[in-house]
Amino acid sequence: VEKGDQAQLTELMEPLHAADIADLLEQIGHVDRESLIRLYDHEFDGEILSELDESIREDVISILAPQVLADAVRELESDDVVDLIEDLEEPQQETILGALAETDRLAVEQAMSYPEGSAGRLMQREVVMAPAHWNVGQAIDYMRSNEHMPDQFYHVILVDPRMHPVGNVTLGKLMGARRTVPLLDLTEEMFHVIPATQDEEDVAYAFNQYHLISTPVVDDEGRLAGMITIDDAMAVLDEEHEEDIMRLAGVGDESSLSDSVAETVKRRLPWLAVNLLTAILASLVIALFEDTLSRFVALAVLMPIVASMGGNAGTQSLTVAVRSLATRDLTGANVWRVIRREVLVGLLNGVVFAVTMGVVGVIWFGSPQIGYVIAVAMVINLAVAGLAGTVIPVMMDKMGVDPALASGTFVTTVTDVVGFFVFLGLAGMVLL
Amino acid sequence: VEKGDQAQLTELMEPLHAADIADLLEQIGHVDRESLIRLYDHEFDGEILSELDESIREDVISILAPQVLADAVRELESDDVVDLIEDLEEPQQETILGALAETDRLAVEQAMSYPEGSAGRLMQREVVMAPAHWNVGQAIDYMRSNEHMPDQFYHVILVDPRMHPVGNVTLGKLMGARRTVPLLDLTEEMFHVIPATQDEEDVAYAFNQYHLISTPVVDDEGRLAGMITIDDAMAVLDEEHEEDIMRLAGVGDESSLSDSVAETVKRRLPWLAVNLLTAILASLVIALFEDTLSRFVALAVLMPIVASMGGNAGTQSLTVAVRSLATRDLTGANVWRVIRREVLVGLLNGVVFAVTMGVVGVIWFGSPQIGYVIAVAMVINLAVAGLAGTVIPVMMDKMGVDPALASGTFVTTVTDVVGFFVFLGLAGMVLL
Repeated sequence: VEKGDQAQLTELMEPLHAADIADLLEQIGHVDRESLIRLYDHEFDGEILSELDESIREDVISILAPQVLADAVRELESDDVVDLIEDLEEPQQETILGALAETDRLAVEQAMSYPEGSAGRLMQREVVMAPAHWNVGQAIDYMRSNEHMPDQFYHVILVDPRMHPVGNVTLGKLMGARRTVPLLDLTEEMFHVIPATQDEEDVAYAFNQYHLISTPVVDDEGRLAGMITIDDAMAVLDEEHEEDIMRLAGVGDESSLSDSVAETVKRRLPWLAVNLLTAILASLVIALFEDTLSRFVALAVLMPIVASMGGNAGTQSLTVAVRSLATRDLTGANVWRVIRREVLVGLLNGVVFAVTMGVVGVIWFGSPQIGYVIAVAMVINLAVAGLAGTVIPVMMDKMGVDPALASGTFVTTVTDVVGFFVFLGLAGMVLL
Repeated sequence: VEKGDQAQLTELMEPLHAADIADLLEQIGHVDRESLIRLYDHEFDGEILSELDESIREDVISILAPQVLADAVRELESDDVVDLIEDLEEPQQETILGALAETDRLAVEQAMSYPEGSAGRLMQREVVMAPAHWNVGQAIDYMRSNEHMPDQFYHVILVDPRMHPVGNVTLGKLMGARRTVPLLDLTEEMFHVIPATQDEEDVAYAFNQYHLISTPVVDDEGRLAGMITIDDAMAVLDEEHEEDIMRLAGVGDESSLSDSVAETVKRRLPWLAVNLLTAILASLVIALFEDTLSRFVALAVLMPIVASMGGNAGTQSLTVAVRSLATRDLTGANVWRVIRREVLVGLLNGVVFAVTMGVVGVIWFGSPQIGYVIAVAMVINLAVAGLAGTVIPVMMDKMGVDPALASGTFVTTVTDVVGFFVFLGLAGMVLL
């Protein structure tokens, strides 16, 4: 199809949603992408741009003819345009801003004046508001006569004369009430206002915690500046999760499948370098016991087992701690209880595997001493794993560092060092 | 406060949202929880129950007086009741079902007849629908006269005479239109219908991908059975993420901070046992080379570095693959491109660290051969890590197994075995 039949292509693409077209563009190579876009650009929808991954988006924007790009961008709401351009290079930003109508451009520029990752960047400026003293009939008449209503909205925001939001009325309540009922009688019990400078992570948390659908955003003086809807919050939540999971694995935050090989190498190299340093640290511990090792090679065979079990148990505790910190289930109120629990769990699991490995050690190497040494090392290392796996992320969080970031490396360093040290050290004492 | 002052407690709890009270109940111990609930139960809200973690929920339900429980449950919408009881034991389920009004109980029982984790369990049966031939005025009059409207709804679902949904009209459009406009002229372009048997994961994907707000659910015959709203989809998305991240770490799916020590040990033990088996496998590989090791103890010092770097690089590739599979960015169309990229990235990172470790090896042990051996082993192991980190989750996905589940253990087993084998094998050839 990609060899020239524009009519057929359009027919094929017609039923697809913008998000699906974006996925399609992401999954094909650059050359196919270019020819596909050239054939399809008479229908190119701004929403496709919104849905694209950052790196592909730049590519697509550079392929699109300026006129097509301008048309595509003009259809979007202000928050989508902000989302679109905030990751672009200067010249591409200028092109898109230039394509917008004057008022839209100002709106976008104002949103861009808020810090990255804040509610101000996330909000759309298109809101439906009404003076707090209106009644249902007045609100409905106003909406009927207003041509420029947002595509999707769920609340009418009530404002006082100084433009401070004072309540939300859901459209459902508005519909169901008689025309004479004052709007103030219909406001929702749960009313949450978000400052424009609030971190988007906190915004997503509030939506998830309080089951919000849309909520007003206010500027420094408490005046209504825009609103955030649940679909934006859902997107942020999705990104935060992605970030957590990627950071836990030591992959760059914003890495995506469409990154080039060079970009990917660049993103992952630093994490591997950190890991190399910590692995060398563990090796130095082993080197302390070269003497013992040279006499009992069996120790070299068994030592990775102790380290590996510790690493795994530590990662388990760490993951639970990182998630609990992210969902705010782990707080100052229960941190000691959680630490105690993790250490206890480590001890108990340690005892189970100590017995197992003790038996294996005796059978494999015919030496009760080796069985005894690996058993004790296992208990100690798994208890340390529970401790380190909880304390390290909690400390990072206290210091204002994202606990997902590289804490895995620290935890496995601790379990490696402790595992090798205890196992080889004990062996040295018992066997020599 | 928890020592008897009911009035003051009520005053303190009054401004709190149900979700916050639930968090509070989760963070205190069982004894405090019991006394707090006994003091507060005259105000106990059904939503608090919905917000609680499963294990705490059972505890709270057993503490609550039957009458309080009945009152609390009766306020909830049908989907919340389903969510509440599906994880409870039989007797508690009966208690709650018994407390419901007849029609509500039937609704809940019908929902429970759908398989766990399906759209049918997720949907609420309270919907606002209108015959497709109505106009705006008829719809508004109907809503004004209907006493039992859902608390939150965003669309009027249009149905044909056989109750098949044919379109969605947003309340915003309805408000803005004149009374004589036919509803069919206002339907949304994007209309997505979900079968009640669809997996909730697919439901969440559809909401996220197509920015849905609420969408009708149909039964086997295509008749309207209920609707799912975005806040439910957001909760599912959140759970799926949680599941992914927990499974990747080898922690049981539904583990939570409030699990007891015994439960936690039980959940984590199987994963550690799998890890023990694979660690023993790696040890067996080392044991093959006991001879070489006994002559060159330096190898025992360095071998964990090769294994650790491979494990890390493999986890990086694995995490990207698991996430891409979950977001459906990794498909049959680009799987070969992704595998090629991961192997290339592994090779390039391998070369960088091969040079580094080669130099370290020479300096540390004064032996160019050791430097050479560790360098070659590093390149091979990191390339294998890229390959295994992508191929293993893709294969698990093909076989219908969740790729997040334990694939980490398989990948690190591969990198451990390959790392030890190549490093010690090469060393045997070069040094002996």
